[in-house]
Amino acid sequence: MIALQISDTVELLIKAEEALKAAQEAQAAADLSIFTSNNLWILVAAAMVFIMHLGFSTLEAGFVRQKNVVNILFKNSMIIAIGLLTYWFVGFNLMYPGFNEGGFFAFGGFLLSPPEGGMTAAYADYTYWSDFIFQAMFAATGATIVSGAVAGRIKLNAFLLFATIFVALIYPITGFWKWGGGWLDALGFYDFAGSTLVHSVGGWAALAGIILLGPRRGKYLENAIKPIPGHSMPLAAIGVFLLWFGWFGFNGGSVLSADPELVSLVFTTTSLAAAAGVVGSFLVSYLMFRSHDLSMVLNGILGGLVGITASADSVSVNSAIIIGFIAGALIPLSVTFFERLKLDDPVGATSVHLVCGIWGTIAVALFGNFEEGVGELKDQLIGIVACGAFAFTLSFVLFFVMRATMGIRVTQEEESKGLDIAEHQISAYS
Amino acid sequence: MIALQISDTVELLIKAEEALKAAQEAQAAADLSIFTSNNLWILVAAAMVFIMHLGFSTLEAGFVRQKNVVNILFKNSMIIAIGLLTYWFVGFNLMYPGFNEGGFFAFGGFLLSPPEGGMTAAYADYTYWSDFIFQAMFAATGATIVSGAVAGRIKLNAFLLFATIFVALIYPITGFWKWGGGWLDALGFYDFAGSTLVHSVGGWAALAGIILLGPRRGKYLENAIKPIPGHSMPLAAIGVFLLWFGWFGFNGGSVLSADPELVSLVFTTTSLAAAAGVVGSFLVSYLMFRSHDLSMVLNGILGGLVGITASADSVSVNSAIIIGFIAGALIPLSVTFFERLKLDDPVGATSVHLVCGIWGTIAVALFGNFEEGVGELKDQLIGIVACGAFAFTLSFVLFFVMRATMGIRVTQEEESKGLDIAEHQISAYS
Amino acid sequence: MIALQISDTVELLIKAEEALKAAQEAQAAADLSIFTSNNLWILVAAAMVFIMHLGFSTLEAGFVRQKNVVNILFKNSMIIAIGLLTYWFVGFNLMYPGFNEGGFFAFGGFLLSPPEGGMTAAYADYTYWSDFIFQAMFAATGATIVSGAVAGRIKLNAFLLFATIFVALIYPITGFWKWGGGWLDALGFYDFAGSTLVHSVGGWAALAGIILLGPRRGKYLENAIKPIPGHSMPLAAIGVFLLWFGWFGFNGGSVLSADPELVSLVFTTTSLAAAAGVVGSFLVSYLMFRSHDLSMVLNGILGGLVGITASADSVSVNSAIIIGFIAGALIPLSVTFFERLKLDDPVGATSVHLVCGIWGTIAVALFGNFEEGVGELKDQLIGIVACGAFAFTLSFVLFFVMRATMGIRVTQEEESKGLDIAEHQISAYS
Repeated sequence: MIALQISDTVELLIKAEEALKAAQEAQAAADLSIFTSNNLWILVAAAMVFIMHLGFSTLEAGFVRQKNVVNILFKNSMIIAIGLLTYWFVGFNLMYPGFNEGGFFAFGGFLLSPPEGGMTAAYADYTYWSDFIFQAMFAATGATIVSGAVAGRIKLNAFLLFATIFVALIYPITGFWKWGGGWLDALGFYDFAGSTLVHSVGGWAALAGIILLGPRRGKYLENAIKPIPGHSMPLAAIGVFLLWFGWFGFNGGSVLSADPELVSLVFTTTSLAAAAGVVGSFLVSYLMFRSHDLSMVLNGILGGLVGITASADSVSVNSAIIIGFIAGALIPLSVTFFERLKLDDPVGATSVHLVCGIWGTIAVALFGNFEEGVGELKDQLIGIVACGAFAFTLSFVLFFVMRATMGIRVTQEEESKGLDIAEHQISAYS
Repeated sequence: MIALQISDTVELLIKAEEALKAAQEAQAAADLSIFTSNNLWILVAAAMVFIMHLGFSTLEAGFVRQKNVVNILFKNSMIIAIGLLTYWFVGFNLMYPGFNEGGFFAFGGFLLSPPEGGMTAAYADYTYWSDFIFQAMFAATGATIVSGAVAGRIKLNAFLLFATIFVALIYPITGFWKWGGGWLDALGFYDFAGSTLVHSVGGWAALAGIILLGPRRGKYLENAIKPIPGHSMPLAAIGVFLLWFGWFGFNGGSVLSADPELVSLVFTTTSLAAAAGVVGSFLVSYLMFRSHDLSMVLNGILGGLVGITASADSVSVNSAIIIGFIAGALIPLSVTFFERLKLDDPVGATSVHLVCGIWGTIAVALFGNFEEGVGELKDQLIGIVACGAFAFTLSFVLFFVMRATMGIRVTQEEESKGLDIAEHQISAYS
Repeated sequence: MIALQISDTVELLIKAEEALKAAQEAQAAADLSIFTSNNLWILVAAAMVFIMHLGFSTLEAGFVRQKNVVNILFKNSMIIAIGLLTYWFVGFNLMYPGFNEGGFFAFGGFLLSPPEGGMTAAYADYTYWSDFIFQAMFAATGATIVSGAVAGRIKLNAFLLFATIFVALIYPITGFWKWGGGWLDALGFYDFAGSTLVHSVGGWAALAGIILLGPRRGKYLENAIKPIPGHSMPLAAIGVFLLWFGWFGFNGGSVLSADPELVSLVFTTTSLAAAAGVVGSFLVSYLMFRSHDLSMVLNGILGGLVGITASADSVSVNSAIIIGFIAGALIPLSVTFFERLKLDDPVGATSVHLVCGIWGTIAVALFGNFEEGVGELKDQLIGIVACGAFAFTLSFVLFFVMRATMGIRVTQEEESKGLDIAEHQISAYS
C-alpha cells in the first residue's frame, strides 16, 4: 500500500475540472447550435410568409377582370410596404407589448426596442429581429384579404387609408388578445396560427367593406346573378399554389421553433387538409353545379388551409383530413350564400377566410388534443365572436366615416372603364 | 507527505461524475441539435418539391393551347390532392412497408402508423412525419408527367381515375423495389433520387397513354407534321425555373439528412447538369433546325435535371456536366424521334422524363464513384427494364380497359372547341 | 483516517478521463451541428438567389413589348447556364484565387479544385461546394441586369458573347478586389452583399450597352419621348416579388453563416428598406406625375433592395428605412433623367442597379456602424469609381469591338417585327 500525495489529488482535481469545463463549453456550443437552427427556421418561414403576398397578388389579379389588374397589383405592392412599416412603427409593440397579461389593450411604445446587451438574450429560441420580421410578414395579410373582396369598385386612396389603419391598429389589438398574452389567452382560447386572429379578422373587415360598397355594377341584373369570371386562371392557380407553399412557413413557423416533431406534424396536417379541401370543394361543387369548377377547387385548397390553421399542431392527421374536407365543402355553399345575399366578393375572400376561419376555430374544440381549460368550445366561440365583433365594428365604422367624407367608391364611369385606366392610366397588358 | 482522506476521494469522484453527466447532457443536446437540422432540411426540401407541382402546372399550361389551359390547371390541382391522400391511405405503407427485404411486394397496412412512444425514436435523422410528407410530395410527380403528355384530348374523369391508380399502386411498388429495400436494392441497382423510379416510370405511363389515345387532331396532316406551339412561353419558362428550384429539394432532400458535404455536392452537380443541359440542347437544336428554340432550351434544363437525378450524390462535378450536356443533347433528337413515330406529346414529357431518365440511370454506371456491386451497368439495365416493363404494362392495361369501358378520349367536337369549354365551361382568359 | 490505494487513484483518473473524452466528443458533435446549420443556410440561400433569375426573367419579360418576350426568356435561360459554367470553368478561381492579398489580379487556375482530404476541412462554416454554388448563383446576376437594359434591339449572339465575357472576366475581377481579398478590401472599402460589386458593376455594363446601341426605334419622336409600356404588368409584379424573396438569400446568405443575430438583422433591414423604397418611389412619382404608377412602385422595391445591399448587416433598422426611402425616391428621378438623355432602358435597370447601387455604397459611410478604417466615405467613393471605371470601360470596349465586327444591333426590319419572330421564329403567345 502506497499512500497518495497531495500532488496526485491536485492533478486529479484539475483533470476533473477540466472535464467539467469542457462539458460546459460543449453544452454552450450545443445550445448555440440549436438556437441557430430554431432561429434559421423562423427566418426561412418569414420568407415563405412573404411569398404569400405574391400568392395573394396573383390570385386576386387572376380573379378580377382585366381592367382592374394593375389596381390589384398596385394595392398589394403598397400593402406589404404599409404592413411592414406600420408594424415597425406601432404594430409590434401593440401586439406584443410585454405587459398587461390577460388584458384588453397595452402598448409598448413606438418603434422597435431591441433588448440591451445583445438581442439574443431575451428570447429562448430566436432573436428579437427574427420575432419582429416573422410577425411583421403576418401583419399585412389581413389587409390583403380585404383587397380582393373589395376589388373592382373601391377608391384606391380610400383602400390604402383603410389598410393602414387596419394593419396598424385593428389586427394588432385582437392579436394581442391571444398571442400577446391578453384576455383570450387567459381564457383558454386556442388559435395556433390564426384561423381567427388572421383569417376571420381579415374576413370580417372584408365583409364590412363589401356591405358598404355594394356589388360591382352589372353583377346583379333584374332577375339574375351574372357570373363575372376572372381574367386569368393561370394567375389564379399560381397564386393558390404559392399560398400553399407559403403556408408551410405560416403554420410551420408558428411553432416558433424548429421542434422536429411539431413542425413535421404541422407540415403534414397542413398539406393533408389542403388536399382534402380540394376533394370536399370538388365534390360539393360538382353536386351543386354538375361542373368541374377550377375556381372552386382552387378556393377549396385555400379553405382547407385556413381551416387547419387554428389546430395544425394539435390534431391527428386523420382529423386534419376531416377538417380540410369540411372546409373545402363549405366553399361552394358559402360562395353561393354570399352571392345570393348580394354580397359581391370577386375572389371569394369571405368564404375562404371568414367562413373557413370560423370553422377552423371551432374545429379546435372538436378535434384538438388539449388538456382541460384549453380550446373548449365555449371559449372558442367567445374568441370568434369577440374578434369578429371588434374587427367588423371598427372596420364598418371606418369605412362608414370614409364613405361619408372622402368617398369609398369610384364613379360609375371609372368603374365601367376599369380602375387601371381610371386610377393608374395604364393597362395591365399592351 | 500527507495521506489523503476518504472525503477527498468522494469529492473527486463526485466531481468526475458531475463532469461525465454534464458531458452526456451536452452530447444529448448536440444530438438533438443535429437531428433538428437534418429534420428541418427534409421539411424545407418537401416544401421545395411541393413547388414543383406549380412548376409542372405552369410548364404544361404554357405548352398547351389556350383552349386547354383550365383543364391542365384543374388536373394538376387534383393530382397533388390525389397524390397526398392516396399516399396517406395506402401508398406510403406500400412503398416503405418495413419488411420483405429484397422482395417484390409488401404492404404495411392502410393509413399511417406513427411509431409509439414518440415519433422521433425510430428514425435516425428525421421524424416519421417528415419522412411521410417528403415522400408524399414525390408520389404525385409521376402522374403529373402523364398529365402533360396526354393533354388536349384525354377525358378528365378517365385521367383522374388513372392518376389515382398510378399514384396509389404503380409508383409505390416500383419505389419499394429500390427505396423500400426490395429486390432491385438487393441487386445493387442505384437510383439516387429517381431518374428511373420517378421520371422514367412516369414517362412509361405517359407513353402508354399517348399510344392508346393517339395524336391530337390536326397534328398529323397528310404529308406533314404540324407544329402546335404552346400558348404562353412566359408560363412555360416560369414552370421550368420553378422546377429547377424545386429540384434542389428533390435531389438535395434525397440525401435524407443535411449532411454538409453530400447536400452541397448535390446542389452543385444538379445545377451544373441543368446548365450543361441548356448548352447541349441549344447546340443540337441549332444544328438541327438552325433556330434559337426556347422550348428546346427549357426542356434542355429539365433533361439535364432528370439526367443527373440518379447520380447527383456520387459523381464528380465534371461528370455532372457531361451527363447534363448529353441529356440536353438528347432532347431535340428525342422530340423529333417521337414526333415522327406519331407519338404526340404536347409538352415533350416522354423526351424529358423517359429518355433522360433512362440516360441518367445508365450514367450511374458510367460515371458513379461506387464500390463493387453497386450501380453496375447490368444491374442498372435490369432496373430500367424491370421498372419500365412493370409501369408500361400496367399503365397500358389500365388505359386499355378504360378505353374499352368508359372511354378515354373526348369527342371530336369537344377536342376542337377545347377541353376548357367542354369539361369546365369556362375559358382560361376573359 | 484511511489512506487511499493506487487502485482508487487509477479509477478516479479513468473516470475523469472518460468524462473529458465524452466532453470532447460532445463538443465535436456540437461543432458538426453548427457547421451543418451554417452550411444548410448557405445552400438554402443559394436556392433563393437562383430564384432571382426567374424574378429577373419575368420582370424583364413583363416590361418589354409582346414581340420581344421569347427573346428575353431565351437570353435569361442562357445566362444562368453561362453564368454557372463560366464560373465553374474560370470565374470562381479568378474571384477567390486564395492569394495575392491586397492585389489587383490573381488566378487560381481553371476548373474547381476541392481541397484534399475532405472538402469541409478548409472552411470554417460551410463546404467548398456550398461556397462555389452560392457564389456561382451570384455571378450571372450582372449579365441579367444588362439583359433588360438592352432589350428590344440587341442581336442575340452579340448579347450572349458579351454576357459570357462579362461573367467570366469582368465580374470576377472587381469581385476579387473586395470579396477575394484584393486592394479594395485592403483599403477598407465595404460592400456587404454587392451594391457595387454586383449591382452597379452590372449597371455600368448596361449603360455602356445602351450608349452604343442607341434607343429603340420609335422611342424618341421629333419633339417628344414616347412611353413604351411593358406588355404584362402581372409578369413584372411576379418578377419583383420573386426578387424580393430571393434577396433574403442574396443578403441573408452573404452573412456567410447562419449567425442568428446577423442574419435576422439582415432580413429586417432588407425588408424595411424595400418597404420604404415603395413609399419613396410612390411619393416622388406622385409628386412628379400625379399618377399611381405601378412600374415606379415595383422599381421602388428593387431600388430599396439594391440600396440596402451594401450595408444590410451594419446599419440600424431605422437607418435602413432612410436608405430604402431615398433609394426609392431616386427611381423616378433617375428614370426621367436617363430618358431625357436619350439613354433608353426598357426596364429601368440603370436606375435600379446603377444609381441605387451607388447610393447604397455611399450610404455605408453615412449610416454604417464601423470601426475606424472601414467604410469611410473616401474609400467608398474610390471603390465606386474604380469598379465603375473598370466595368464601364471594358464593357464599352467590348461592345464597341463587337459593333465594329459582328454588329450588335438587329436590323430595322427585325426590330420592327420583333425579336421573337426575327431571332426565334415564334411568338410568346398563340
